Amino acid sequence: MNFLKTKSAYLDTGVWANKAMKEAKGFGETICVASSKDKNYTYIPKGYVIPSDADYFHITTNNTIYGTEIRYDMDSPVSLIADMSSDFLSRPTDISKYDMVYGGAQKNIGPAGATFVLIKESFLSKIATETRHIPTMFNYKTHIENDSMFNTPPVMPIFTIKETLKWLKSIGGLKKMEAMNIEKAGILYNAIDSSSIFVGTAEAESRSLMNICFVLKPEYTEKENDFLDLCKAKGMSGLKGHRSVGGFRASTYNALPMESVLALVEAMKEFEKSL
Amino acid sequence: MNFLKTKSAYLDTGVWANKAMKEAKGFGETICVASSKDKNYTYIPKGYVIPSDADYFHITTNNTIYGTEIRYDMDSPVSLIADMSSDFLSRPTDISKYDMVYGGAQKNIGPAGATFVLIKESFLSKIATETRHIPTMFNYKTHIENDSMFNTPPVMPIFTIKETLKWLKSIGGLKKMEAMNIEKAGILYNAIDSSSIFVGTAEAESRSLMNICFVLKPEYTEKENDFLDLCKAKGMSGLKGHRSVGGFRASTYNALPMESVLALVEAMKEFEKSL
Repeated sequence: MNFLKTKSAYLDTGVWANKAMKEAKGFGETICVASSKDKNYTYIPKGYVIPSDADYFHITTNNTIYGTEIRYDMDSPVSLIADMSSDFLSRPTDISKYDMVYGGAQKNIGPAGATFVLIKESFLSKIATETRHIPTMFNYKTHIENDSMFNTPPVMPIFTIKETLKWLKSIGGLKKMEAMNIEKAGILYNAIDSSSIFVGTAEAESRSLMNICFVLKPEYTEKENDFLDLCKAKGMSGLKGHRSVGGFRASTYNALPMESVLALVEAMKEFEKSL
Repeated sequence: MNFLKTKSAYLDTGVWANKAMKEAKGFGETICVASSKDKNYTYIPKGYVIPSDADYFHITTNNTIYGTEIRYDMDSPVSLIADMSSDFLSRPTDISKYDMVYGGAQKNIGPAGATFVLIKESFLSKIATETRHIPTMFNYKTHIENDSMFNTPPVMPIFTIKETLKWLKSIGGLKKMEAMNIEKAGILYNAIDSSSIFVGTAEAESRSLMNICFVLKPEYTEKENDFLDLCKAKGMSGLKGHRSVGGFRASTYNALPMESVLALVEAMKEFEKSL
């Protein structure tokens, strides 16, 4: 609504990327430069061409449902916009590559009820007010000019975000956070890869550090609920995979401690032995 | 954005009413049926005519800055939409008179970060999707069809709202709440009217039960800060009136206890004696 003038470009890496593209279509021409829908979004497409006449190129950096992630800051011939809802602040980011980064707070930075938007000043001048009517509340400029207080700010979520950012700084910042995330995810992916009954769903080089998706090998699929029951008995919940992928999904956001990862690995080994 | 097809009608009772009207103008013809701007919004207009061909008539029931309130549920020849941000749940409301009621939570029902929208089912079918493109997120139908969980709900504000509603029920519901609000505001308005130095700014029959605005009589105006200092010394804050009205504003929302009202009245008397 703010930046589509004549043409936009989108990378289709799953449900959330698709929803963003669908909304853009309501405002103008939208090009899907590449999609991994052919393999149920289990990989991040490569080798695509971004149209040089697009107003912007939109990516969704982490795909929660499929456990894939764009863990690099790409070069784009046009303005790059990234929905970083589910991996913002999980690693140091070369923010200079992006014209806009946005997302919901509720994964790594705080509770639901707040959002974050970062816009380059040069990009802000490109808001499409001459192309369409943008209501005051939905124009990014409004919020920047009013120091994010055009509306009454949601104090409780914002306070919690402040405390989370203090914690992030206290442990050593984003470099340390990334190292911790790599370690946590690595232990879990190792456990999956060295298991004789579990198998990861995302292609190795597209794997997310935030959402680790895995299933039981076909011959054990009927035991899915048994594993979930075992986890539940050990106090682990939310491990059921999204219905479009099946199996299991372990979310290893910044706040998840190593202990939780180790407990899940232990449960996986115990379950394997019991079969 | 959702309901303006050919023509809308607005009652201009202050800054918030004006902002709503300004946003509507971006979507189509907007008629201002009456305004109290001539007297700095110190009264609620009467005797105006609502165009019978308007898609809706929009009112702002309580005007925080000027201390005026529409404390009755009016009849309207067209669909009635009310912004009840600052007096929702302050009194029993004949909800059948309204096609839509909406507002921010942060006055009577909970902390900032949540909003409420009530829409009659018959009105919902009138959403202007054939007149303009409405993004999914901004179409009221989306939220109703998704049980208010199209976006990740702001859990902390919603939980606090639940607790507030339980409290409201426990004290005796809206009838009791209204009686308490009438009593609180009555004591304060009486203190103003019987004072020789203070005077209310809103016309008597338009007075709000939520925001009580008053000033010092012209001969005492220079003492304004002295009164604020006295209040501050007694632990009372937020009493400075909005810059467009001046003087003082006591907000007596549902949550304000009678003790606070009595403390302010006491301070007013003490200040009067000291002059």
